[in-house]
Amino acid sequence: MPLVRISIPKGLSADIKSNISKSVHSALMQEFHIPADDYFHVIEEINKENLIYPESYLGIDHTSSMIFVQITAAQGRTFEQKKALYLQIALNISTSTAIKKEDILIVLLENNRENWSFGNGEVQHFTHI
Amino acid sequence: MPLVRISIPKGLSADIKSNISKSVHSALMQEFHIPADDYFHVIEEINKENLIYPESYLGIDHTSSMIFVQITAAQGRTFEQKKALYLQIALNISTSTAIKKEDILIVLLENNRENWSFGNGEVQHFTHI
Amino acid sequence: MPLVRISIPKGLSADIKSNISKSVHSALMQEFHIPADDYFHVIEEINKENLIYPESYLGIDHTSSMIFVQITAAQGRTFEQKKALYLQIALNISTSTAIKKEDILIVLLENNRENWSFGNGEVQHFTHI
Repeated sequence: MPLVRISIPKGLSADIKSNISKSVHSALMQEFHIPADDYFHVIEEINKENLIYPESYLGIDHTSSMIFVQITAAQGRTFEQKKALYLQIALNISTSTAIKKEDILIVLLENNRENWSFGNGEVQHFTHI
Repeated sequence: MPLVRISIPKGLSADIKSNISKSVHSALMQEFHIPADDYFHVIEEINKENLIYPESYLGIDHTSSMIFVQITAAQGRTFEQKKALYLQIALNISTSTAIKKEDILIVLLENNRENWSFGNGEVQHFTHI
Repeated sequence: MPLVRISIPKGLSADIKSNISKSVHSALMQEFHIPADDYFHVIEEINKENLIYPESYLGIDHTSSMIFVQITAAQGRTFEQKKALYLQIALNISTSTAIKKEDILIVLLENNRENWSFGNGEVQHFTHI
C-alpha cells in the first residue's frame, strides 16, 4: 500500500539509487508487513542547491548529502512499528550505500484504505490489509 | 481545492500530458463537484528508471508505463464519491490516451479546509465548500 | 519539523529561489515557532507547461508565474497560527521577489510527531515540540 517518494541529490549512480529504494522497500516488508510486490516508488533527483537542510539539527550533523524519504501509507501501524521501520530504513541504507544514517530524513503521511486505487480505478484495499 | 501531482515517465507528448491532466480534472469536477477554475496540477516527469512499480500487484498486471496520481483535497467526501472518482479518472485517462486503466495508481491525501491558501496569503475556503 | 516542497517554474535565478525558500522558513520560525536549524526544503523546478493553474480562481487573478508551497508539519497549530503563517509567507515572498502574493498557493499537510525521523532512524520529536 505505501507510495514512497525518495528525494536525492542529482548524480547518484543507478546502483546507489537502487540500493536506497530496495532498502526502504525491504524495511517496509519487514516492519509494516507489506508484500514484496507492493512496491511503488518515485525517486526524485534534485539539483543539489535545491535540496536544503541544516548543517546540524537536534544534535545530528549532516556531513554528506542528505536524502528525504516520504512514505504515504494507510494508517493503522503502531508507534512501535513506526520506530522499527525508521531504524531499519536507516540501517539498510547505511549498510548498502555510503549514505550515513545521520543523513536520512523520514516522514510518514497516513491516510485511509479507501484513499487508494492500485489500478482499474477500483478500491482494492478497503476490506482487508 | 485539490492540488494534483501526476508522476509520469519522461517522454510523453504534450498532448498526452494534457489529456491525463484534463482527465483527472474533469473527474474531480464530476465526482467531487469542484469548479472548473479550481485547477491546480503539477506534472512531474520522472526518468523511467526512477519510477518503480511491480510487474503485477493484487492481480493487476502493469504492462505499459504506469503513472501515479496523487490528489490532495479537503476531507469530507464520502466513500461513494471516492470510488466514483477513481473509476472516472481511470476511464477518462484510458479513453483519451493509450495508458491502460491497469496502469494508474491513485492516492488521495486529505486535510482540513483551513489548510489551504489560494493566494494573497488568505484562507479562502474555511467557511464554505 | 516541517518538510517544505516548493514547486516553481524552471528558470528562476538562484537568488530568487533562495529568497522564496528563506521567506517560507522565516515565516515558519515566526508563526509556527520552529527553530532556525529546522530547515528542510525541496525546491522542485517544473517545466512551465507542467505547472497548471487557472487564470483566475476565487476572484484572485494569476498574472505571472504561480508557485505552489506544500508544508508537511506535525499537527497542533491553531487556526490563528495557520492564518498568520500564510499571510507571512505571502508577505515575505512578495517583498523579497517579484512574485505577487496572488500567485502563491499554500497547502498544509499535517501528521503526528511520531511520523518523523530526522536522522539515525530515531524518533526525535515524540515527547516534545
